[in-house]
Amino acid sequence: MNTLIENKRKIVNDPIYGFIQIPSDFIFDLIQHPLIQRLRRIKQLGLTYYVYPGATHPRFQHVLGASHLMKEALNILRSKGQEISEEEYTGSIISILLHDLGHGPFSHTLEKSFFKNITHEELSLCYMKLLDKEFSGRLKTGIEIFSGSYPKKFLHQLVSSQLDMDRLDYLRRDSYYTGVTEGIVGSDRIIKMLSTFDNELVIEEKGIYSIEKFLIARRLMYWQVYLHKTVIASEQMLIKVIKRAKKMHKNGENIFLTPSLKFFFDNNINEKGLLDKRFDNVTPLEAFAKIDDNDIIVCIKEWQYHKDKVLSILSKGLINRDLFKVSIQKNKFTKTEIEELQKKVMKNYKLSEKDLKYFVISDSVKNNAYSKNLDERINILGKKNQITDIAVASDVSNVSALSRIVKKYYICHPKIH
Amino acid sequence: MNTLIENKRKIVNDPIYGFIQIPSDFIFDLIQHPLIQRLRRIKQLGLTYYVYPGATHPRFQHVLGASHLMKEALNILRSKGQEISEEEYTGSIISILLHDLGHGPFSHTLEKSFFKNITHEELSLCYMKLLDKEFSGRLKTGIEIFSGSYPKKFLHQLVSSQLDMDRLDYLRRDSYYTGVTEGIVGSDRIIKMLSTFDNELVIEEKGIYSIEKFLIARRLMYWQVYLHKTVIASEQMLIKVIKRAKKMHKNGENIFLTPSLKFFFDNNINEKGLLDKRFDNVTPLEAFAKIDDNDIIVCIKEWQYHKDKVLSILSKGLINRDLFKVSIQKNKFTKTEIEELQKKVMKNYKLSEKDLKYFVISDSVKNNAYSKNLDERINILGKKNQITDIAVASDVSNVSALSRIVKKYYICHPKIH
Amino acid sequence: MNTLIENKRKIVNDPIYGFIQIPSDFIFDLIQHPLIQRLRRIKQLGLTYYVYPGATHPRFQHVLGASHLMKEALNILRSKGQEISEEEYTGSIISILLHDLGHGPFSHTLEKSFFKNITHEELSLCYMKLLDKEFSGRLKTGIEIFSGSYPKKFLHQLVSSQLDMDRLDYLRRDSYYTGVTEGIVGSDRIIKMLSTFDNELVIEEKGIYSIEKFLIARRLMYWQVYLHKTVIASEQMLIKVIKRAKKMHKNGENIFLTPSLKFFFDNNINEKGLLDKRFDNVTPLEAFAKIDDNDIIVCIKEWQYHKDKVLSILSKGLINRDLFKVSIQKNKFTKTEIEELQKKVMKNYKLSEKDLKYFVISDSVKNNAYSKNLDERINILGKKNQITDIAVASDVSNVSALSRIVKKYYICHPKIH
Amino acid sequence: MNTLIENKRKIVNDPIYGFIQIPSDFIFDLIQHPLIQRLRRIKQLGLTYYVYPGATHPRFQHVLGASHLMKEALNILRSKGQEISEEEYTGSIISILLHDLGHGPFSHTLEKSFFKNITHEELSLCYMKLLDKEFSGRLKTGIEIFSGSYPKKFLHQLVSSQLDMDRLDYLRRDSYYTGVTEGIVGSDRIIKMLSTFDNELVIEEKGIYSIEKFLIARRLMYWQVYLHKTVIASEQMLIKVIKRAKKMHKNGENIFLTPSLKFFFDNNINEKGLLDKRFDNVTPLEAFAKIDDNDIIVCIKEWQYHKDKVLSILSKGLINRDLFKVSIQKNKFTKTEIEELQKKVMKNYKLSEKDLKYFVISDSVKNNAYSKNLDERINILGKKNQITDIAVASDVSNVSALSRIVKKYYICHPKIH
Repeated sequence: MNTLIENKRKIVNDPIYGFIQIPSDFIFDLIQHPLIQRLRRIKQLGLTYYVYPGATHPRFQHVLGASHLMKEALNILRSKGQEISEEEYTGSIISILLHDLGHGPFSHTLEKSFFKNITHEELSLCYMKLLDKEFSGRLKTGIEIFSGSYPKKFLHQLVSSQLDMDRLDYLRRDSYYTGVTEGIVGSDRIIKMLSTFDNELVIEEKGIYSIEKFLIARRLMYWQVYLHKTVIASEQMLIKVIKRAKKMHKNGENIFLTPSLKFFFDNNINEKGLLDKRFDNVTPLEAFAKIDDNDIIVCIKEWQYHKDKVLSILSKGLINRDLFKVSIQKNKFTKTEIEELQKKVMKNYKLSEKDLKYFVISDSVKNNAYSKNLDERINILGKKNQITDIAVASDVSNVSALSRIVKKYYICHPKIH
Repeated sequence: MNTLIENKRKIVNDPIYGFIQIPSDFIFDLIQHPLIQRLRRIKQLGLTYYVYPGATHPRFQHVLGASHLMKEALNILRSKGQEISEEEYTGSIISILLHDLGHGPFSHTLEKSFFKNITHEELSLCYMKLLDKEFSGRLKTGIEIFSGSYPKKFLHQLVSSQLDMDRLDYLRRDSYYTGVTEGIVGSDRIIKMLSTFDNELVIEEKGIYSIEKFLIARRLMYWQVYLHKTVIASEQMLIKVIKRAKKMHKNGENIFLTPSLKFFFDNNINEKGLLDKRFDNVTPLEAFAKIDDNDIIVCIKEWQYHKDKVLSILSKGLINRDLFKVSIQKNKFTKTEIEELQKKVMKNYKLSEKDLKYFVISDSVKNNAYSKNLDERINILGKKNQITDIAVASDVSNVSALSRIVKKYYICHPKIH
Repeated sequence: MNTLIENKRKIVNDPIYGFIQIPSDFIFDLIQHPLIQRLRRIKQLGLTYYVYPGATHPRFQHVLGASHLMKEALNILRSKGQEISEEEYTGSIISILLHDLGHGPFSHTLEKSFFKNITHEELSLCYMKLLDKEFSGRLKTGIEIFSGSYPKKFLHQLVSSQLDMDRLDYLRRDSYYTGVTEGIVGSDRIIKMLSTFDNELVIEEKGIYSIEKFLIARRLMYWQVYLHKTVIASEQMLIKVIKRAKKMHKNGENIFLTPSLKFFFDNNINEKGLLDKRFDNVTPLEAFAKIDDNDIIVCIKEWQYHKDKVLSILSKGLINRDLFKVSIQKNKFTKTEIEELQKKVMKNYKLSEKDLKYFVISDSVKNNAYSKNLDERINILGKKNQITDIAVASDVSNVSALSRIVKKYYICHPKIH
Repeated sequence: MNTLIENKRKIVNDPIYGFIQIPSDFIFDLIQHPLIQRLRRIKQLGLTYYVYPGATHPRFQHVLGASHLMKEALNILRSKGQEISEEEYTGSIISILLHDLGHGPFSHTLEKSFFKNITHEELSLCYMKLLDKEFSGRLKTGIEIFSGSYPKKFLHQLVSSQLDMDRLDYLRRDSYYTGVTEGIVGSDRIIKMLSTFDNELVIEEKGIYSIEKFLIARRLMYWQVYLHKTVIASEQMLIKVIKRAKKMHKNGENIFLTPSLKFFFDNNINEKGLLDKRFDNVTPLEAFAKIDDNDIIVCIKEWQYHKDKVLSILSKGLINRDLFKVSIQKNKFTKTEIEELQKKVMKNYKLSEKDLKYFVISDSVKNNAYSKNLDERINILGKKNQITDIAVASDVSNVSALSRIVKKYYICHPKIH
């Protein structure tokens, strides 16, 4: 009894929003669940801390923050006359609170290293369904909102769209923790401008400039943080070191693995149908819930001393921040450029040709700050209740320009002495 | 002797940059001069405080802040190998410190109410020349930098261009004091990206996103603050009340004027040549130095009780924040719309037709966030030392889009009951 | 009708708290009243901007901010089970919104220059009563709360006590505008810790450290801002220049006065009973409502050129920030020290002895960070519902130490060349 | 060659101070060393993130920040005429940069779990000496400053004293990352007030209020963050789980350990003399450099599933944030209180009496905000060049009050159902 009362007042100190109040006991119980607590052990931005030392904040904090924004957004919509039932209110919060459950060690970077053909969103949904069983069906509405099947479409859009509470939180939070103050987004004002029209999320006309600013801040964060060339280099090293370790394990060589991580080196999970199947009495979903950033780091630390040169070079580089050099440019690197570089690296590190792929990596990254796709666009609510895509509503065509996909080519490789 | 040492350490507390150190005794003496101290009595943003109550910060603070940024910029350029002599260093600081001397009561709003055909920049130059005499020619370099005749063009560009220290300071400062946090500009990073090429100011390539953000922040500040419709309405009321008072004074009617303000009601100064001429033993330059925001407010307060209806309605409205209603839109208001409104206002306030012009005001405002003019553009320094206009250098054409001039039409009038 | 709906959503942008929502139409109408709008023309911190150039924020902004905190505090208390009726809720907001109506030009500094024996709180009450008439008795509860006669004592304590919303706002706001970041107060946390006990305001035990911090921040703001020696010097100059002008006016000498200000140079109002009396058809209350900082500045600007040396020296010094030098110390200045200084000043400025009192000013200032008086103390609510004075509840006796009155002696005078 | 030039401009983005410039190539090389890079894998505040979710910042960031403040402090002292040679300048920065090398997994919490009778400061010194060898004696001055043997005592005081750059950085940084904004310290102002006298660090008199504020902020951070009761509870759980695991390992039971961690379960290192000795060809110093937070977390995750009840209960609680309940009070808990609790816990968890010590923990914590010890006190430099302890110099005796040691008793235990 006493605990319930205590919970009702439960407050969390967040450096971004100040005091965050947990909206209900049920939400509090969800937050206490090991599946969410696990997000404390997964960094929001993976290896980005190698460029921005302060960026070690965990995903756990982000989902709390996004839930807080969701609450604010729902309150604003209600105050503007949009009906939202208690069930819908709680469902929306649940939906955003759990939307990242499917993330594993180093989030996006290793997304394809553990499962083939399964996205983290699909994994999130699987975990939500597990929780729904555990909590006797109380997550039903939340799941419908998350998966987009709930009739009031704007609730899903608050969870996942170009203006969702996810982005609003992570852009601001990542700015705070990296110190890239230019990425700061005026979430307050944007939320104040939210409205609904025909059950779709829209922005009031006077919010146009704020949205432009939001899009530009996002663009800046992409190229200055998420796709920063040194971040790309370290992520590639991480992907390659796991790839090498997997290959060696498969070849029967003895490499150190934490017990939980071993599961994913022993088994290849390449379709959703297998997620609930038992391998040695453990399902992939259960196994995945046990691993986090710590397993990866501990293994790489050990691999530094392995006799395999590829494994040890990559591991030492990662642990001691002796990162790959990287060039990034608008045009593709020519075959000649790549080959010359490969030769130098091969000679410098005395590598065989077949191991080159771990060391000279040439690929591209792309991003557009705004997508004009019909079902994704940000809609502006005009004074006469007309709805217009922001790319059209803006008085200059800058948002339209931002919808162009920018593609950059990079090549990375270890230092050449 | 003691005073000199004290001065050398002189530090001012600025809410934006923290402690600002005055760079030299001579600069300190300039700051102490009545012509600069007068800027303490002129609000940076005129009547904007009627929309943003916190925006009562004085121009004095802005010129101190801009000088601080100038110092930082010069230090960065020096650290990158650009030679800047002590004389040039001090001259640049003087130039930005004094660039606003020509502003009078309510800055831009009343710029045309006191002088015809003379801009505030021209007035600033006149005052600089007066000071140069007073300080035995020590402002020579500063004046050359200000007027653009100094050979190292980048010094002038730091004072006046699309990336000058003036804008960098006022955007950030106005954000701080209005609370429009979205207008915050990353002056730190932009200054770090400054460089020179062929004696012109340029931005290093990796600064492109910061500049985009700066342009968008500026655009937002324009439409959300500087050209906010209620700000426009109050400014129009201010212009009209002065116009009415002038007319009445000219007609020999008795209206209250502070002694200093009377000069400008008695005399019409409409060409630069007259600025040094004596009228009743006082030059317009001397007279202008005596007036500030306070004179205007005191007069309007008195005019509230004047028997002239036009004067008293406008004055009461201004003093008690009973402001004109204003509509703003992309298209011109039609003749019919305007005439209908005029009729209503005329009837409601029992006005004669010839006084309508004080009450129904229809005009336009315009702004472009970026100008592509050859001698104004922001130039990007590429990795191979090539120079490109940012509108071209950007990987999408959003900056180019921002160069379109946006024009908005407004109509304002007193409330109709 | 439309206006009402618009009002209901009325939002003000505050740099400290973000968006402030006006709680009701009635409060909005009160804010629009000329008596409150006048507070836009009175600086919160008088001449403090001579030390901290950014500190030109108006009292108007402070009363809005304090009302916002009041709303938050009332919401917290309600959420903890304290019953607060709608009438009490509105009354409390009215009370804090209007608590500063009695302030005049340069607030505290000139408090005694216009009225003798009448405090600004008494004046505030008079204006509230005028407004109560104008608004048909709707301010009754607010007035009772303000004057302390309302039964629920904690409502008055939120308006006026050692932990009132007035202080919580002004300390934080003055920090923001001066840039003295060390004065920042955690108003959020303190308000979260508020509770009631026996209709008195109390602080939950875990808030003790926050209160200590608040008291220390207040102490710092006193000595670093409010009682900064240069602020004291400029305030003394202001008091003296008004005194001199009054004396000259009384002696029949011609000195410039704005029409509104003249009232207080013609009449001496020295008891509350006179406030409603008509002098030349105007009551002192009406006359006082017409003057503000602008009148004083305009007059002093003119007085610079007056032939009276005392008046012109003081006026020039004030306008051009050529301020008195000031020494401040723990011990009284000796008679000899004062006399020697007087001699020097007299000689330097060729003054007569009877005018010395305008130029050499020796007095003291005092402050204690905490008052232990029975009816003022901050009470802590222990876990077992016991109430203890914070000076006793603290685990060390630092708060008790802070209750000592600190007195400092100063002497100020014009520069001696 | 190119790299050197690049290094010279090396800038790190810090959310607290903005851009931090690495002062020299040598410092840059030190920062790149694995021993410092390892601090990226040790959280500054251990398990505090269980109370403040954002507090996952690494020690690496803190040492960079503290070095930055050191640079600022040295510049200020130089500007005040204190001679500081280049060697001393670099030495001081090295000293603070390396002062935390001796920290291991979960910093203070597990300080006694790996070494007996050896402090982390002693370990830091050992690592510095290793580095000194590696860098051919270039750390000599830095080591002398760190160990206090360098003649200019103020340099050591900047590294370790009641006003050192260590505290100045961590208080501000921990405030930023926890969101406990009240702990923010005005490091700017304090550093501006630093001076030297007789080779000792002193504070200028006008800085007294800032120091008071600093001490109160520190006091608040202690009781609200560092000694927060839930932080204490989780730290006790961590200490106990390691203790249990060690005991079991010693008893020959099979428990999972990462290879690096095994060293410390196999060997007891209880005196400084052993640190360089080889155990199975590895010295304790080498072994310690290999472990960090990740090893501990990975092990505890595995231990959840161990059949030993004590180990699994503690591990599950720690991983899933099912933490011990804790009571904290001014007085000792009575024997009866403790015994009753023990009985309940024993019954509830079906524990044997000898395992109770892992579950019911009663101890005390203490802290004083200021120490008056002769060689530790903060000295104030008066206007007449006299030196006074701040506890005496303050105009009230609040600092003196803060020197009282506050001791609190706590008892913690798992939830009783």
